[in-house]
Amino acid sequence: MGVCPVPHLRKIIALSFSRNFRLLLIFMNNIPDDIPTLWDDFQAVDVCQTACVFGIWESCEGSSSILCVGMRSFKSRSKSQVLKLESACLPDTPQDGHVHVKWLGSPINPADLNMIEGVYPIKPTLPAVGGNEGYGRVVKVGIGVKNLCVGDHVIPAKSGQGTWRSDSHHKEDDLFRIDNTLSTEASCCLQVNPPTAYRMLKDFVDLKNGDIVIQNGANSAVGKAVIQICRLRGYCSVNIVRIRDDMAGLINELKNLGADYVITEDQLVKEYRGKFKGVKLALNCVGGKSALILASNLGFRGCMVTYGGMSKMPLQVPTGPLIFKDIRLAGFWMSRWYEDPNNFEERKSMYAELCGWLKSGDLKPPEFEKRGLDEYAAALEAAAVKFNRKQLFIP
Amino acid sequence: MGVCPVPHLRKIIALSFSRNFRLLLIFMNNIPDDIPTLWDDFQAVDVCQTACVFGIWESCEGSSSILCVGMRSFKSRSKSQVLKLESACLPDTPQDGHVHVKWLGSPINPADLNMIEGVYPIKPTLPAVGGNEGYGRVVKVGIGVKNLCVGDHVIPAKSGQGTWRSDSHHKEDDLFRIDNTLSTEASCCLQVNPPTAYRMLKDFVDLKNGDIVIQNGANSAVGKAVIQICRLRGYCSVNIVRIRDDMAGLINELKNLGADYVITEDQLVKEYRGKFKGVKLALNCVGGKSALILASNLGFRGCMVTYGGMSKMPLQVPTGPLIFKDIRLAGFWMSRWYEDPNNFEERKSMYAELCGWLKSGDLKPPEFEKRGLDEYAAALEAAAVKFNRKQLFIP
Repeated sequence: MGVCPVPHLRKIIALSFSRNFRLLLIFMNNIPDDIPTLWDDFQAVDVCQTACVFGIWESCEGSSSILCVGMRSFKSRSKSQVLKLESACLPDTPQDGHVHVKWLGSPINPADLNMIEGVYPIKPTLPAVGGNEGYGRVVKVGIGVKNLCVGDHVIPAKSGQGTWRSDSHHKEDDLFRIDNTLSTEASCCLQVNPPTAYRMLKDFVDLKNGDIVIQNGANSAVGKAVIQICRLRGYCSVNIVRIRDDMAGLINELKNLGADYVITEDQLVKEYRGKFKGVKLALNCVGGKSALILASNLGFRGCMVTYGGMSKMPLQVPTGPLIFKDIRLAGFWMSRWYEDPNNFEERKSMYAELCGWLKSGDLKPPEFEKRGLDEYAAALEAAAVKFNRKQLFIP
Repeated sequence: MGVCPVPHLRKIIALSFSRNFRLLLIFMNNIPDDIPTLWDDFQAVDVCQTACVFGIWESCEGSSSILCVGMRSFKSRSKSQVLKLESACLPDTPQDGHVHVKWLGSPINPADLNMIEGVYPIKPTLPAVGGNEGYGRVVKVGIGVKNLCVGDHVIPAKSGQGTWRSDSHHKEDDLFRIDNTLSTEASCCLQVNPPTAYRMLKDFVDLKNGDIVIQNGANSAVGKAVIQICRLRGYCSVNIVRIRDDMAGLINELKNLGADYVITEDQLVKEYRGKFKGVKLALNCVGGKSALILASNLGFRGCMVTYGGMSKMPLQVPTGPLIFKDIRLAGFWMSRWYEDPNNFEERKSMYAELCGWLKSGDLKPPEFEKRGLDEYAAALEAAAVKFNRKQLFIP
């Protein structure tokens, strides 16, 4: 992608870092020399800390808008995180084997924020466009492209390609064709949340009708997908949520999705102590003591799968059950699953099942708040604090 | 086993409970009515707490001595733990399918202490004879016994049979014949420590020459077997020990067994941070933060096996490696492995290999302090605090 010379910078915003934000020393060696304004902004930041700069540039030739992430080792008293909307000019015709994708919807996921913070294992070459998930329409096809046509809907075949933009060119193998009759909400969530729930329920334990699955963070987008897939498969779901003001509303919402139990950790430890016998699978996205409580509820040869660490604390695991009940602990990372070429056919069949459920209404996609790319500041702020709705860029 | 009426009680000793001793409410419904003296001792204890009573009776008809464990729900201000040596009369001839074993050596293992405390998953019918490991000689064979002869050396085929006694009758299937040319030390350790090390090094990760294994509690009997089997197999062992007065002596001892590295946790975190690349297997018998440190050193798809929890704290596990490095966590319990009938042939071949090493001197058995059964008080006290030598009853 060629960056237009001297972009029209709109604004620089500072995002507050979370308490656990780990500053990362990345030496940026590929900021183009022709974006001096941004570079000057980098330099202007006061010098004392390594920090992370996230740039979004905006509209140059009117042809397309892109969101770019830039990180650099520099020093700042304010630990600034800078976002800029910037424009770039795409060649009219994609290279051989490439297609031009017009992006139609790109969510903000926690992993995107981690990537900007520099704490995600996928480290993009910088400056980079943000966003790992999204869907778009193929609008132009380069020479030699075999499996994609104009009009096809696609999602990224793997993470790290940058979806927070209006248009981009990609190798056809880096894209995955999806059903083009799905709604925006269904299409743009097809890569991360429901598949994560789907795989965790399928790949670790041989679950049967009536088996018990317990999860924390049940109100997350993955958590809601877990509840619904458990309902569809006939598993009993025990859903742990944090206490909050509108508990009745939350319980009602999750029960409407099919939750069998919606309880707090405190209730699980006291009121429901020992009530759930032979739990086969625990899904953990919190860590710390919450993981200890989940694991303590597992039955003989049960398995706890960790896919997140919202508490930012190490998991705690009880020694006794690990040894004497032979429980297992594993992690799950959707991105790695996609990168295994052996999973290509299974990916298609998983999408076929998920799309069937999404189209019939049996599986509800996450609720989204739609944003233009120019609303990035509010969107990224909301993504870090609002968990009941996801932020979705409609470029 | 018939308990002699009105045993001659020798002494009652009180063992101090550890801080983490969990009192267990077990209603004793099978103390024979004909041991009123012991029963009276139970009643005499002051009433306020549920506690655990461990009885050893001694010498009645001069025929044999047995050690018995008794537990009962009763109340005590002193949380007494009572041990008694008692005699019992064995019939002259074993029942059909049974053999008479004269026990020749029976160690005290941490699991035995846990069983007495009532916190071990194997709950013997009470009163019961203590001890899960040991070896003996078959001295009489009942009608219908097919696979054992007088003179054979045997060990328990499974835990919970009570080895702290001079003689007992067992079904032949509850015993496992071993090489009868092994030394006492080698014979009596064949069931627990070296096999635990052997299986953990074999059953979880496909280790190859040069691969790195890291363990905590490296000075334990299992730890020392791990070091030696790693040396024999060509694995690199990184051995974490607690700092102590004679560090040089300990380092020397473990290096003489074949340890590649003997370091403290503090050294691992600071001096050796990031030095051990791609560790494939971590063996954890401590838990708490020690497990966190071990797991943090694992490489991609590494595995941490937990077989003990000396710190009495839940394991801590870092979330990132679990998800992004796809590490696995599992528990190992030697007793369960023995109970799986599918492992019978593998058990024989494991013993063949271990016995070969033990006889050639390539694998040194634990160091033992030999005790008569009448020294039970000192032996049990020593077993709870001395970790460099194991206590061994020679009945």
